[in-house]
Amino acid sequence: MILILGSDGYIGTHYTHKTGFIGVDSLYKRTLMSALNIKPLFSVEANLTKKVDISKYGQIASLIAKYKPDAVVHLAENPSAPYSMRGHLEGAEVIDNNLHSTLSLIYAVRDYSPETHIIKLGTMGQYGCPNVKIPEGWFDCQIEGRTDRLLFPRTPHSIYHLSKAFDSDALAFACRVWGLKVTDLQQGFVHSLIPEAHARFSYDAEFGTVLNRFMIQAIAGHPLTVYGKGGQTRGVLHIQDTLQCLDLAIENTPKAGEYRVINQLTEWKSINDFADLVKKAGHLMGFDTVIDHIDNPRVEKEEHFYEVDHQTLKDYGLKPHLLTVDMICETMEYLAQFRENINTDYILPQVRWRC
Amino acid sequence: MILILGSDGYIGTHYTHKTGFIGVDSLYKRTLMSALNIKPLFSVEANLTKKVDISKYGQIASLIAKYKPDAVVHLAENPSAPYSMRGHLEGAEVIDNNLHSTLSLIYAVRDYSPETHIIKLGTMGQYGCPNVKIPEGWFDCQIEGRTDRLLFPRTPHSIYHLSKAFDSDALAFACRVWGLKVTDLQQGFVHSLIPEAHARFSYDAEFGTVLNRFMIQAIAGHPLTVYGKGGQTRGVLHIQDTLQCLDLAIENTPKAGEYRVINQLTEWKSINDFADLVKKAGHLMGFDTVIDHIDNPRVEKEEHFYEVDHQTLKDYGLKPHLLTVDMICETMEYLAQFRENINTDYILPQVRWRC
Repeated sequence: MILILGSDGYIGTHYTHKTGFIGVDSLYKRTLMSALNIKPLFSVEANLTKKVDISKYGQIASLIAKYKPDAVVHLAENPSAPYSMRGHLEGAEVIDNNLHSTLSLIYAVRDYSPETHIIKLGTMGQYGCPNVKIPEGWFDCQIEGRTDRLLFPRTPHSIYHLSKAFDSDALAFACRVWGLKVTDLQQGFVHSLIPEAHARFSYDAEFGTVLNRFMIQAIAGHPLTVYGKGGQTRGVLHIQDTLQCLDLAIENTPKAGEYRVINQLTEWKSINDFADLVKKAGHLMGFDTVIDHIDNPRVEKEEHFYEVDHQTLKDYGLKPHLLTVDMICETMEYLAQFRENINTDYILPQVRWRC
Repeated sequence: MILILGSDGYIGTHYTHKTGFIGVDSLYKRTLMSALNIKPLFSVEANLTKKVDISKYGQIASLIAKYKPDAVVHLAENPSAPYSMRGHLEGAEVIDNNLHSTLSLIYAVRDYSPETHIIKLGTMGQYGCPNVKIPEGWFDCQIEGRTDRLLFPRTPHSIYHLSKAFDSDALAFACRVWGLKVTDLQQGFVHSLIPEAHARFSYDAEFGTVLNRFMIQAIAGHPLTVYGKGGQTRGVLHIQDTLQCLDLAIENTPKAGEYRVINQLTEWKSINDFADLVKKAGHLMGFDTVIDHIDNPRVEKEEHFYEVDHQTLKDYGLKPHLLTVDMICETMEYLAQFRENINTDYILPQVRWRC
């Protein structure tokens, strides 16, 4: 028996649609987007079997005690870096929500079902852009002729990414000290959608990932807003590949005490590359797509080395859907039918990393 | 102007006594020890200029906005690994208290006094016992012929130590993204006391550090309780050296955006070494001191490599008070006058790391 936490999100809705697994959600993001007056591209019904706030230990513990699931897929976190950077109130909110979701889950599993495999959606973003190839969690640390296998350091650049680094530390701790089994999926940017899943599609500056936002900008006739020089390079994958990855993670259970890290992406490209691909797709579809470099609201390197080990998913047999102009056109054709709903007020960044 | 957070603690009381700096405290530990029905060796008066709970943003922000201090010395955290390992309630409490103390402080400094130097008491324990020499925060990470200077990975073995790893990540973030100035002091076990400071002296299994506990056990005629094989090696320093270190940290301000890590210890020894020294001191003082190896309640390596870079404090000119049998005798002579107050019920561990 598999349980999905965060079933009402973009990935959660897609994944419960694919699998039919039981899904729970607190509707936190729905409430938050409503409070922020941000609407997704089209309205979608709440997707959940039961309303559960997993950041509350009692609620997740009841669920784990009842089902003793073979695996729990934990997708139940606030995913917005810009929201987390608004100020103390929002930063503390993101940290509390995300960290306590993960903490309550590891305690509930330890207390009621220690055999359960925890599969957690993390982010590649917690590593930042180091000048070395990013390993899959573990690396051989060499100092003065001695070696130890340790967890690769994280360099988060937003409070949201910091919260995900905390999550990863808590999960590693749960394996090391309590002997739990965890797979931590460090994911790149997910893009596109599977229409039949009726999942929320966000394109705003707070909740939309960059490629989804660019596609909507092209459809709306808005310049593609590249932050700064656009040399920022990031891992990326199609939503179909995310769903495959979750399947593969479930099929490959770590042994007790093992903290397994998988870098979940199929390729990496710069923001300029993404913009160029969407511009080409836009032109093919008859849109007058232009690229606009705007002041970078974030604190991040705009030109840097980037390379990521992502061997595990290849070994598991992932069949990647690599990014092509045709693929983008196909997604944009579907999205274009909702053109009237696009609110271009959502597009420009509202939050600066430094005041 | 210098502000001390956590002035009612063991180190805070000593340091405000030495310096006369303004100190604030929430009296959280006092309340907690009272709730747990644990008494220190002798009662001490609350040591604070003002009652402030720095885990509440509003309270610390008012203080920072009012004083705009040159430096803030942040000692205001729950220091108990065993307490943090009791269960979800206590674990979440320690994480919330500690992480929100640090988060509220970095936000308050960012928002109201970004020039303030934050000096934070961390712990060597967050690094665990890696098979390499532990650097001072930063190390050259080498992977496939490329190099980057990154933060050395942490391997905490309790929820308390995990909370301190979170703190360090938050502080590094505040430097990297907001440009703050931070010195993170990764401290070893502190021992002994300065009588005139009238500071709380804890010897119980939850709040007493190992050497202080051993000295009280010897005085009470209780066997020195070594957990497991006793090969666990830890950094250590005399309370006088902690006070010197805080002075030296204040005198050496990092530049804006610099996250400076200092390993705060003067030497390292195994638990067996500590027990042997206290046993010798006990015999010199006429106590019939014996050593008892009890089941280790913790999950930790009992025999391992241990070496720590602690060059910075040497460079700053620290004059260490290294551990000797004479030094222990001197401290024990002072402590022995409170022999009637010792409650040996406090000595044996109450909490196991694995259920």
